[in-house]
This record gives sequence, C-alpha cells and structure tokens, in this order.
Amino acid sequence: MPHPFDDAIALAPSGDDTFTGRTSPAYANFIGPYGGITAAQALQSVLLHPKRLGEPVSFTINYAAALADGEFTAKARPARTNRSTQHWIVELQQGGETVATATVLTAVRRETWTATEAQLPEVPRPQDVARTHRSGVEWLNRYEMRFVGGHIPRGWTGEEHPESLSRLWVRDDPPRPLDFASLASLADIFFPRIWMRRAKQTSLGTVTMTVYFHADGAMLAASGAGWLLGQVRGQGFRNGYYDHTGQLWDEGGNLLCTTHQVMYYKD
Amino acid sequence: MPHPFDDAIALAPSGDDTFTGRTSPAYANFIGPYGGITAAQALQSVLLHPKRLGEPVSFTINYAAALADGEFTAKARPARTNRSTQHWIVELQQGGETVATATVLTAVRRETWTATEAQLPEVPRPQDVARTHRSGVEWLNRYEMRFVGGHIPRGWTGEEHPESLSRLWVRDDPPRPLDFASLASLADIFFPRIWMRRAKQTSLGTVTMTVYFHADGAMLAASGAGWLLGQVRGQGFRNGYYDHTGQLWDEGGNLLCTTHQVMYYKD
Repeated sequence: MPHPFDDAIALAPSGDDTFTGRTSPAYANFIGPYGGITAAQALQSVLLHPKRLGEPVSFTINYAAALADGEFTAKARPARTNRSTQHWIVELQQGGETVATATVLTAVRRETWTATEAQLPEVPRPQDVARTHRSGVEWLNRYEMRFVGGHIPRGWTGEEHPESLSRLWVRDDPPRPLDFASLASLADIFFPRIWMRRAKQTSLGTVTMTVYFHADGAMLAASGAGWLLGQVRGQGFRNGYYDHTGQLWDEGGNLLCTTHQVMYYKD
Repeated sequence: MPHPFDDAIALAPSGDDTFTGRTSPAYANFIGPYGGITAAQALQSVLLHPKRLGEPVSFTINYAAALADGEFTAKARPARTNRSTQHWIVELQQGGETVATATVLTAVRRETWTATEAQLPEVPRPQDVARTHRSGVEWLNRYEMRFVGGHIPRGWTGEEHPESLSRLWVRDDPPRPLDFASLASLADIFFPRIWMRRAKQTSLGTVTMTVYFHADGAMLAASGAGWLLGQVRGQGFRNGYYDHTGQLWDEGGNLLCTTHQVMYYKD
C-alpha cells in the first residue's frame, strides 16, 4: 500500500510541461482540498519535470479558486535556466480555468558558511505532549499533532487575545520520510491565527503561501520520518486579510524551512 | 521636475498585457539596478493594467538574472479574476529572455475587524537619530536612512555576531507621498543580514522577495511622505542561501507591510 501522501501527489505526464493529477479525498478540507496538499502537488510538477535543475530553494503558491473534487492539470514551465539556478512558473487548472499559480526557484547548492538565527525554542519533547483528538475533517487525520502552546480555542467565546503564537510537534500519520513535497504540505499545517486572536468563527482561506527551504534533500533525508516542531505567529490583521510567519525544525534543531502566508477572512 | 522614482517606474503600453520600461541610473546598484526598483516596476505593470481589479494584497518577485542597463518589457497577465480578487503573473524580459518573474494578488478590500500583532518597537524618533552618509552607490542616495540599531559593520573584520536585527527610519529622498510601488521598493531597503552576522564581504544578491500589503491605498495616502520604521532579521543561512523577515510601519505605528526575502551568497 502506498502512503496516502504519495497517492495524493501522483502526477502523470500529459504533454510538454504538463501533468495531470487528482484531488485526494484523504486530504479533504471543509470545502475542497487542504491547501498544503495543493501546494505539494504544484511543487511536485516541478520536481518531476525532466528539465529540472537542482532542488527547491523558494516556493510561492497563490490560491486563485477552490479546487473542485477530481482532475486537475499542472503546467510547469522553466521561465529561466541559469548555470546553477532555475526559475519556474506553475499554473494548476481545472476545466481550462486557473485555480492556482506558483513560482519556484530551484538551485544546485554548494557547501558554505552556515548559521541558524531562528533557533528551535525550548519545548517539551513530543513523547511528553498529548496528541490532539482525531477529527471529522479528513486531512487533519493525515497528521499527528502535539501542541506545546497556543492550542485551538476550546470554544467560540469571542474573547480576544493579544497574541497568536502557537508551537506544535507534527509529523505525517502514518509516519513518512520527509521530502520537499511533504515539507511544503507541512508548511500549511497551522490553524488560522485569527481563531486564536478572536475565538470567533468566520469564513476564511489561504490566498498565498511562501516556503523558503533551508534544508536540501540530504538534510531532509536525515530528518527521516521524525517529528517537526512548527512555530507560527500572526503579524497584521486588516480589512479582510492577515498574515502569519512560521518556522519548521526537525527534532535535532535543524531549521528545515521558514514560511509565510496570507489568509482571507470575511469579517 | 518629476520625482526620480516616478521617472524610474514609468511604463509605456506596448501591446496587449505588455509595457516597456527602462532601468534607471538614479537607482543603480553595484551591478545592475537596485532590486527594490525592479520590484516597483514589476508591480507597476499590474497597477497600470486596464483590467486590474482592486489593490495589491500580496506580491512575490523572483530575480532570475541581472538586468542590463536599458529597456525591458513587462508582461502582466490576469491568470484568474474572481468577484473581488485577481491573480496576476508578471514576467520582465530583456532581449526575449526572462529576467524576473512575479505574482500579484489584488483585491477589493472591505472594512473588518483589525489588529496589529507585530507592533512598532520602542525606538527614538527619526529627528533624534543621525542620518547615514551619502554613498557612491547611487540608489542609496535615493533614500534617507537613520539607523536606530543594527548598523552596517564599520569594517570587514570577520568578527561573527549571533544575531542580525536592524531597525532604521527610512523615506524617499527627496520625500515623496507613499504608494504601493514605492512601498514595494522600500521593502528591499535592508542591507544584507549576512554582513551583520560575519562582517565579511561575499558576492550576493536577492533571488526572491515577497511583500504582504496590510495598508490599502487610503492608509498609504494618510502616511504621506513621512518616515517609515523598518525592522528586519535573518532566520537561516545555509549552503548559499539565507532568508530574512521584516516589517515596515509608519510613524503612527500602522503596520504597512511585512516582507520576506532570500539572498544568494557565494561562500
């Protein structure tokens, strides 16, 4: 049996610069798919592309419309290829309409001076933290989450809080060795910051997400199927849009990626 | 006399979805133009587009190659238009080759619940801080900068520092009323974080930058030609690429935008 994540990101070549995929019921959200899996599918179209040079360094996806359940087309085009870097433009389409756009920078990396300024915070180890309960929202069951701070509010009390920092241990469920696609999906793991600020339900959805990969393939492989510590906090909430900024480390304290996103909220 | 910034971002329509512009000697960097002005030019192609809906919410630019001095073409295409949001793909080209790619989300915003989690830090007022000296690098003379912390190292001593936080007051020189294009340019104002960490020169350049606009046009207009407080810090530095995360507020404490970028560094 393949892992449900591998099933979900499977793409079949269907022409020059073109792949066909399907939305995955295993990663269904309230409406349409979990944004992280759409991100992984978009990135996968570059990872599978025969012209790809190097590994992902940065990745931005813009969610243009809710995906309908079923087939989609991924068009991935190298807009510029240099000696050691390459710039990609990706469009996901359904019925000839664009549902997501993305850009990816891939690069051949060399060993250089290295430092981590955003350090793994001091937190309890994952085995000492309780797991969140299983959920009726399918994609949430594809990840094991153990919050060490900044839980989802227990009730929609409307009580406002001045800050929205959350930290959690997270990994695929069942565990799966980490790679660029799964890390891109994990970058979207954080529940909406506006829920922490307001304890109030409102229509919302991610409109854009960026992931900067600090890890290369070898470091991801070394992280294996282990726990990642995710940290996130909101920055500005204004007139229908807010942003958050986050980081993901492996248990050894390696900063694997940093990530930012903007969510729409209705009121 | 028009402001040099308005000269620099002037684009002439030259076909469907196409504009022609020129690099600006007033914003020249060591090699090629200042990345902020290229960002402003790319964003301006969307701002000037007759099909544009709403105002910029998020903007990502990827620097694919050094721009040569002279003409460039900006191709801006609405990939998806919804009722209140629109997704753009932009390519800047010279000699038929792509030199930058960008995506932009524009949206019609409505008044909602609003909060600023990333607060203006406590810093001296701009009039109480010394201005940095004028520079041989032309674009630096287009901005008045007053550092309140995290200055450029005084010498290339090679001494390493554990953190790279900088804060500065900044505005166009001569002052110019703020708008989306000038704010996009200001988002690239921060000198390389790796200089603070290492006090060592190395070849480097921005490869991608994202700006999330919290301000709408009315808030930018209200900020006028006043001072902005920029704050930035590095996160991870590894194998040729590092990222930073930053914020820009007006003097009244309004969070105008947040911004992130990845720079290449040679060793």
